[in-house]
Amino acid sequence: MAMKVLMEISYVGSEFCGWQVQRNALSVQKTVQTAAETLLKSPCAVTGCSRTDAGVHARQYFCTLENENLDRFPLDRLPLALNCLLPETVGVRDAFPVEKDFHPRYRALGKEYEYLIHGGRLKNPFLSERAFFCGRMPDTDCMQREAQDLVGTHDFSSFCASGGKVEDKTRTVYFCRVEKLPGEQVSLRICADGFLYNMVRIIAGTLLECGLDGRKSCGTVLSLKDRRFAGRTLPAQGLYLDRVFYRKEDLEMRIAEVNGK
Amino acid sequence: MAMKVLMEISYVGSEFCGWQVQRNALSVQKTVQTAAETLLKSPCAVTGCSRTDAGVHARQYFCTLENENLDRFPLDRLPLALNCLLPETVGVRDAFPVEKDFHPRYRALGKEYEYLIHGGRLKNPFLSERAFFCGRMPDTDCMQREAQDLVGTHDFSSFCASGGKVEDKTRTVYFCRVEKLPGEQVSLRICADGFLYNMVRIIAGTLLECGLDGRKSCGTVLSLKDRRFAGRTLPAQGLYLDRVFYRKEDLEMRIAEVNGK
Repeated sequence: MAMKVLMEISYVGSEFCGWQVQRNALSVQKTVQTAAETLLKSPCAVTGCSRTDAGVHARQYFCTLENENLDRFPLDRLPLALNCLLPETVGVRDAFPVEKDFHPRYRALGKEYEYLIHGGRLKNPFLSERAFFCGRMPDTDCMQREAQDLVGTHDFSSFCASGGKVEDKTRTVYFCRVEKLPGEQVSLRICADGFLYNMVRIIAGTLLECGLDGRKSCGTVLSLKDRRFAGRTLPAQGLYLDRVFYRKEDLEMRIAEVNGK
Repeated sequence: MAMKVLMEISYVGSEFCGWQVQRNALSVQKTVQTAAETLLKSPCAVTGCSRTDAGVHARQYFCTLENENLDRFPLDRLPLALNCLLPETVGVRDAFPVEKDFHPRYRALGKEYEYLIHGGRLKNPFLSERAFFCGRMPDTDCMQREAQDLVGTHDFSSFCASGGKVEDKTRTVYFCRVEKLPGEQVSLRICADGFLYNMVRIIAGTLLECGLDGRKSCGTVLSLKDRRFAGRTLPAQGLYLDRVFYRKEDLEMRIAEVNGK
């Protein structure tokens, strides 16, 4: 019987059309599937924890792998063996057996994203494709203040791109934290039970506007429930899926850790 | 009369054949020259502070730019204007006028390089082309101890690739420091009055061997004055030109700072 394995992977999204398989484009899903099929010499089913847009990165991403030969393969050697077959931009970090009905997307209790902004006046080549180059430093205290209005359970219609098909736009944001990092970088970390289409990139764009001219109010935008009042959708290159939580304890510990800072 | 400007730049070396212009290959020098000639609409002379090998990165690099129209161009706008014409992987950070006889290579009093090793067991896609993936963690205390034998004025024949044309292989190393960084990374920082061909990459390879099996003695290798006794030349992708010193005070402050740590 085919065995199911949950794999922890990470990838640099720059060269990919995102996680999801697409016609005429290179996806992470297809890349992982091809490597697994080469290794296991038979068809593999690969299911991810999230669709990510083209150019979005993942420091921690989970996907399941199902294959009939998997139970004859030593699991502790799976990451190293797959890494040899994967391109430099995708790496497998761990693998564990899971039950047949485990779904990496529906089982996730929460996800944490980071959005990186480079606030220097002059470009930094080492941040190319890794952060959004904004050209000047926003007021991060103001951004952090405004971000607190998003914490809690709200209708996030204002922060959802128009192509989203989801009816219920209520989500619970566990934390939203803006911090200055060395090298003129600004980090926005947001953790929620789920995210709408382009939600993090629109929140990042709105908070950046708050930090640059101080006129926008995040709470007002939220209450208007209309995408037109939010800021622009910042580009994918600054966005990182950072953590995915499957256990309540891990999620609670992380929320306490970030709030305790 | 043509004006001479000293520019501080940085670049990700992955896509370049190095600094120096080469036939049939993309060099950083040619890339900067082309951008400057597009901006200033006449031939430009660009001279660098160091030849770097293909794939080597530079966080701080200096080059002079000479052009007859340069004195009519506002110097404070030169970095931004050039950045718009340069690819994502090269950035101009600053520009200052210098005397006609200033040579960025001969005027440098010292250079500091960093060599980055990723000592994790599993690859990290975000360090691809940015660090040398070694596959296991070396003993950094041992590396740091061994590195101290290189500090001072010595004949570095053991750490010079054959092919180098320099007769006098005596150099003065101001500091050589091995440190563990977060994310299973090891940083080797070395500062000297000058470096021989592949010197940092051979020193990194020798110290890594010390840190992995502990049998090699850096001091013995140094005293044998023979390349065959040193370790392998580590790949270019882990090497960064980090700082270039033109003023005695800056160099002395940096030496005191690193030694005081």
